[in-house]
This record gives sequence, C-alpha cells and structure tokens, in this order.
Amino acid sequence: MANAQPESLSRLIERLMKLPSVGQKTATRLAYYLLRASREEALELAQAIVDVRERIHACPECGNLTDLETCGLCTDEARDRKLLCVVEEAANILPVERSREFRGLYHVLGGVLSPLRGVSADDLRIPQLLERVRREGVQEVVIATSSNVEGEATAHYLQRLLKPQGVRVTRIAAGLPVGSDLEYADELTLGRALAGRRDM
Amino acid sequence: MANAQPESLSRLIERLMKLPSVGQKTATRLAYYLLRASREEALELAQAIVDVRERIHACPECGNLTDLETCGLCTDEARDRKLLCVVEEAANILPVERSREFRGLYHVLGGVLSPLRGVSADDLRIPQLLERVRREGVQEVVIATSSNVEGEATAHYLQRLLKPQGVRVTRIAAGLPVGSDLEYADELTLGRALAGRRDM
Repeated sequence: MANAQPESLSRLIERLMKLPSVGQKTATRLAYYLLRASREEALELAQAIVDVRERIHACPECGNLTDLETCGLCTDEARDRKLLCVVEEAANILPVERSREFRGLYHVLGGVLSPLRGVSADDLRIPQLLERVRREGVQEVVIATSSNVEGEATAHYLQRLLKPQGVRVTRIAAGLPVGSDLEYADELTLGRALAGRRDM
Repeated sequence: MANAQPESLSRLIERLMKLPSVGQKTATRLAYYLLRASREEALELAQAIVDVRERIHACPECGNLTDLETCGLCTDEARDRKLLCVVEEAANILPVERSREFRGLYHVLGGVLSPLRGVSADDLRIPQLLERVRREGVQEVVIATSSNVEGEATAHYLQRLLKPQGVRVTRIAAGLPVGSDLEYADELTLGRALAGRRDM
C-alpha cells in the first residue's frame, strides 16, 4: 500500500486527520482536493494557517484575539465603554456580536473556575477585570459565562467581587432556545424560563 | 462584526470554506482549533500542504501521483509487469490496492471519454497505454473504469483498440455491493449481477 500513495500525500492526510471531526475518508478527500485545486488556492490556505499563528495574540486590554496591538473592539470609539460583557473565551465574542444586542466592550476570562480541573481565580483574567472596572468607571458588567455548573459558579463568584465596587452586575437569561418546542425542554431549563418570566 | 475577529482569522476561515463540504461553522471550528493547537502542529499542516503542491507530479510511466521520479509501483520488482489495470484517476489506485486482489501495474487515463464534456481519446493517456502494451508485451489489461455510462463507453472503446494487439482485455465485475440487500438493488445492477453469475 505504501507505494500506491506518495509520501507527501500520506503525510498531508495524516496531518489533516489531527483536525477535529476529520477521519481518514474526509482527510483523503481534502488532500486530493488540495492536490487538484489551483496551486494558488492551496498555497493561500497554507499561508493563512501560518499567518494565524504568527500574527494573532490576545488583546492586552480585553483578551480578545487580535492581530493589531489593541483589538478593534477596544479601539472602536462608537462602543459604550461603561458596559462590559464577561465571556469565557475569545471565541464567545463573535456570537454575542452577531446578536447585535450588545454595544459595550468585552472581557475574556480565559476559562471558568473549576476546582476539579484545578482552575482557580488566579488562573483567569479576574484581577484584570476588577482593575479595569475600577479604572474605567464601568457601570454594568454583563456576565455571559455558560449556563452550566462551572459557568454559573464563576458568575456568582464574579458577582460577589464586583457588587462591593458599586457596579451593576447582570447575568444573561436562561430559558427556552428560540424556535424550540416546549415539549422537548428539560425541567431545569423550563424552571429557569418560568423563574425568569417577563411581563408581555 | 469586522472588529470582533482578527483579519488573519477571518481569512483563514474564508480559505477553509473553499474546501469541499466545509461550511462556515466547520471552517470556524477548524480555524479556532488551529489557533489553539500547538504551534508545531499548525505549521506542520501548512508545510504538508505546500509539500504536496511542490513535490507531487504524475509518474511518467503510469500516471500515478508520486513524489519520486518514477512511482513506487512502477519500480516495484515484485509486481507482475505483464498485467495492467486501467483506472480513470490516480485516486482510484489506492482502493484497488486495498482490495489486495491485484498484483500488476496501473495505467491512469486521466478521465473518461465524454463527448458531452468534450473529452476525446486525445485528451486521455490512451496513446501511451497502447504504446506501453506493445513495448512491455502486456498479456492482460483489466479495465477498472466506473460502472456508469461514460466508464462503460470508455471500456468498450479501449477493448476495440486493444483486442487487435492480441492482448486479453477484461472488465471488473458489476453486481451487488458486498453486504448489500437484494431488496434495495436497482434493476440494472441486478440484471448485471444475474448476467455475470458464476458456478458455486
């Protein structure tokens, strides 16, 4: 079998198989595609991978991923600088932006508190958050950590630290996903949806 | 939205979306994976893409993809040089090899005859096949083109050219896929399976 496939092709397939949800069949299809695609297209993809690794770093202010010195959100004058949204990871910023419901700035924690996995407050960008709230005179912190045990625990921890600073601390709502059937909602979600009911 | 994502990350996602069956969600997941994976792993993938494009070319003898001067199959002394398997594309060689049923050499046509798409005999490596059969004294040519209209037409065309050279020309069998239900077989396949029945 070894002779049937050029070594550089086998190596590309092997490397592609390290990507998430890419098995041998998909990797083989992608490798042959890259072999048949225009030379330019293949080399542009390779260069884009290199660029991402060479250029992207965390914004020193908010922790967002950026290839600028300070990220484009932090330097955007149109955004409300008194409003912060706290997220676990930089990847969580884009979905919030897509909702078009938030016009403040972000703060990336870099994870959630997790005693089981040995993640304590010192491992997250929590001191930077407190300092930023103080320095910038932030008026509201929206905590947008996940709606699971660790996300909730982290939200409560942050609330206890932030409240004494006189800042309004809010939590994104838990409830039924839009477009979902009540029939399929689990009782915890339904309980939270009921508790969070609002006047129509 | 533009500010929320570094430009080099957006560009990588865009490039990944050009791959077959990769939509925006998958591309985004792959890009973040490459950003978080070890630097070495990401750069190795980029290099593997470049290598495939820089090193791989068609074997001058059989048309297989190779990064050697002549491909590893053509230079393998253990293979039967009097037996040729004709395939449409180089990618078809690996599945035949995996079957472990063939120990001869290959000849890649580079496509099939297709009047509709303007592919004629001159566009395929057919003259090279005839020359090779003559030069090497090939005794049997197994035609393993696809079992569709164009594949069959190409097989018949080759048979008419090769027979006068006194070479045995065979065609891979059509029939029920192994493990498939008779119930789901279409009548054409079933017809071919019946016509090709063998003594047990």
